[in-house]
Amino acid sequence: MTESNETVRMDDVVSLCARRGFIWQSSEIYGGINGFWDYGPLGVELKNNLKALWWQKVVRERDDVEGLDSSIIAHPRTWEASGHVEHFSDPLVDCRACKKRMRADQLDDAGACPARQGTSEHDWTPARNFNLMLKTFVGAQEDAAATAFLRAETCQSIFLDAKRVRESARQKIPFGIAQIGKAFRNEINPRNFTFRSREFEQAEMEFFIHPSEREKWFEHWLAERVEFHRALGFGDDRLRVRPHRPDELAHYANAAADIEFRFPFGWQEIEGVHDRGDWDLRRHGEYSGKELAITDELTKERYVPMVIETSVGVDRTCLALLCNAYAEEKLDDGETRTVLRLPLAVAPVKAAVLPLAKKIGEPAQEIARELRRSFNVFYDEAGNIGRRYRRQDEVGTPFCITYDFDSETDGKVTVRERDSMAQERIPVEGLRAHLQDRLEKAR
Amino acid sequence: MTESNETVRMDDVVSLCARRGFIWQSSEIYGGINGFWDYGPLGVELKNNLKALWWQKVVRERDDVEGLDSSIIAHPRTWEASGHVEHFSDPLVDCRACKKRMRADQLDDAGACPARQGTSEHDWTPARNFNLMLKTFVGAQEDAAATAFLRAETCQSIFLDAKRVRESARQKIPFGIAQIGKAFRNEINPRNFTFRSREFEQAEMEFFIHPSEREKWFEHWLAERVEFHRALGFGDDRLRVRPHRPDELAHYANAAADIEFRFPFGWQEIEGVHDRGDWDLRRHGEYSGKELAITDELTKERYVPMVIETSVGVDRTCLALLCNAYAEEKLDDGETRTVLRLPLAVAPVKAAVLPLAKKIGEPAQEIARELRRSFNVFYDEAGNIGRRYRRQDEVGTPFCITYDFDSETDGKVTVRERDSMAQERIPVEGLRAHLQDRLEKAR
Repeated sequence: MTESNETVRMDDVVSLCARRGFIWQSSEIYGGINGFWDYGPLGVELKNNLKALWWQKVVRERDDVEGLDSSIIAHPRTWEASGHVEHFSDPLVDCRACKKRMRADQLDDAGACPARQGTSEHDWTPARNFNLMLKTFVGAQEDAAATAFLRAETCQSIFLDAKRVRESARQKIPFGIAQIGKAFRNEINPRNFTFRSREFEQAEMEFFIHPSEREKWFEHWLAERVEFHRALGFGDDRLRVRPHRPDELAHYANAAADIEFRFPFGWQEIEGVHDRGDWDLRRHGEYSGKELAITDELTKERYVPMVIETSVGVDRTCLALLCNAYAEEKLDDGETRTVLRLPLAVAPVKAAVLPLAKKIGEPAQEIARELRRSFNVFYDEAGNIGRRYRRQDEVGTPFCITYDFDSETDGKVTVRERDSMAQERIPVEGLRAHLQDRLEKAR
Repeated sequence: MTESNETVRMDDVVSLCARRGFIWQSSEIYGGINGFWDYGPLGVELKNNLKALWWQKVVRERDDVEGLDSSIIAHPRTWEASGHVEHFSDPLVDCRACKKRMRADQLDDAGACPARQGTSEHDWTPARNFNLMLKTFVGAQEDAAATAFLRAETCQSIFLDAKRVRESARQKIPFGIAQIGKAFRNEINPRNFTFRSREFEQAEMEFFIHPSEREKWFEHWLAERVEFHRALGFGDDRLRVRPHRPDELAHYANAAADIEFRFPFGWQEIEGVHDRGDWDLRRHGEYSGKELAITDELTKERYVPMVIETSVGVDRTCLALLCNAYAEEKLDDGETRTVLRLPLAVAPVKAAVLPLAKKIGEPAQEIARELRRSFNVFYDEAGNIGRRYRRQDEVGTPFCITYDFDSETDGKVTVRERDSMAQERIPVEGLRAHLQDRLEKAR
């Protein structure tokens, strides 16, 4: 019945996102700002649900992972130690005639210099490295001493805080620190909707281990993270693990793997699992002069912990969820519907409460109020019921609760299920517990 | 029994926060960075709980408020229209000798120029205005055309997106848009722990209304917000509303009020409720050339909606919660305990599961796993039970669950309540529902 995602076009997803209030370009009324996106009423719920799910699995369900929420702006030495000041750059060229700046490795796509339209002439300078961190100035001066950077990845402050977290939470090796937050990269060429943007959200976890256990924990975390994406409904045809080849690995890394999703624009990384060795702690130890090695209580061995990292793009995973969920269906009656088959745990709205007519709105409102104690609920009394169902299908609402003229006498409502469109009469009494139970079971 | 908060000193709160993993200075290992703070394992749970509570009350429990999550960096014209580029500044002076820069209105505190130590001599330039927005450069150039700002308040993007949200969510006047997120101000003099910092989190709601209803909605939202803070446990002696005097009001405002909390360092604003008139929409309409007026469906009246704003500092409210909760108690046995009497809804850890001995750890772990399905749980099997209780008191954990040697035979555990220290035997079967019920009732 469902058309395959083979034919899902980005245009359809982008258009649905703007029309229904998931995601649109930031500052639209000023013509937009390239590489920045806003999440609307439904988008923010989707994203928050995804983040809560990650936090539940990675932090709360484990004894050995602690949470963190650090500032976006850190001490500038952070980015010298991490290597970002020196190495986090793209090769750029300038046109000597019009001063336009381009990525040297994208000149073929870029075509001729815009100052000399219609000709292939241009006069590029040799490539030079352009740092991709966003720079700012903190304090009353605007000079080198005041220069700071918006973080290019959330993990660095995990390394800075590792000792403080370990001590205050009384953790021992092996243990991890997890964080969700914004990061920034001055992409020269933002593209593919929210996939490659300049401001984005990461969910990262750094797991600190003894050097003898690198392989074991790398395998553990890779398996955990693949399982997470499987539970989001990404099947074998849309999800794959791509281990890095030896020549792709950083000099300090034993292993790395990308978890890739097949978007309409191709296979792309949504998460990376990396063995980072002791590179980060060692560098921050050197640059700060602080002792970041630890002593094993039993063996008295002294060592700098190694790190296994899991790093997932929150926006990218939201986009994967939307692409994976989007379907246009031909129904038996010849009509078509657009439906977002989102997993229940991340669906922005869990239930829509729909009185069959406005005049029975009051008891329906009462049901909505009761359900809102447990989850996000939408209330809608306008338009014919079929159209209201379609609207909820299109935004992925798993349950529609219809209050009709029988409800007043039999104390029941019709619960319509999004995917099967099956309808069932359920007593209003206990409805919240019933839905909560179905939502919990679906996890 | 409890010492009064009159004597709570900031030093005690700051020290507890660092020692137990609530909050500490960002980039500590590099000597810190002034005005930036990191939330540790307990701090991030406290802050997330507060944000979730606000979202529940302001967005999810209402039909007339929609959520939003916009980018931190918006189109630079935003800040011209809002007036920030022109007016968001402090008066600064430079010392001609040493080049040090100071706030002109704080020269008395600042003392002499550091280049001329021990003398009162200095050679300040006349005051000039220094803009407090953090500046960055987006794209491959670093010039005026590429200049962008980190948002100084989250509300501006609400105004930019108001039309898109209203249309996609099919809202009508009156309705609101709410957002939680980071904002940045280049404070010259960050102070009072997290109270005045350079990177902070706001929870803002802009409610769009017909011009005839300004007073009604201002009163409604002020009452709602005071009620919110009361529910956080802030009593009359610590919470007050300070209406702005007519000479304090912006030219476009009918009314404004600060909700103030009495910190150890004095009465300070934690939230503002403002009548912003039509200033913001009118200015963004002018600067963007877009039509932001709306037409009333019934009367066909055309008008720019007025705005009632509620703007609460998330970090400030967290700090108020910590100050309000902190107590040192002399117990009947002569011992003292430090206890954080946090409201149950925001307590970072809801329950600690404590086996009386390590050898009965396995069934206790099983209980922790079951409870984690519903809320955040801490598991601890090390040290004597009294000390473990104290540790949980100090971080505000409402319930300690002790699994002892009788538990294996009678299937019950001891539930100890934080504030009263009362203990009760409760069956393991149904424990999760029992605690969930007590947590829900406390809301």
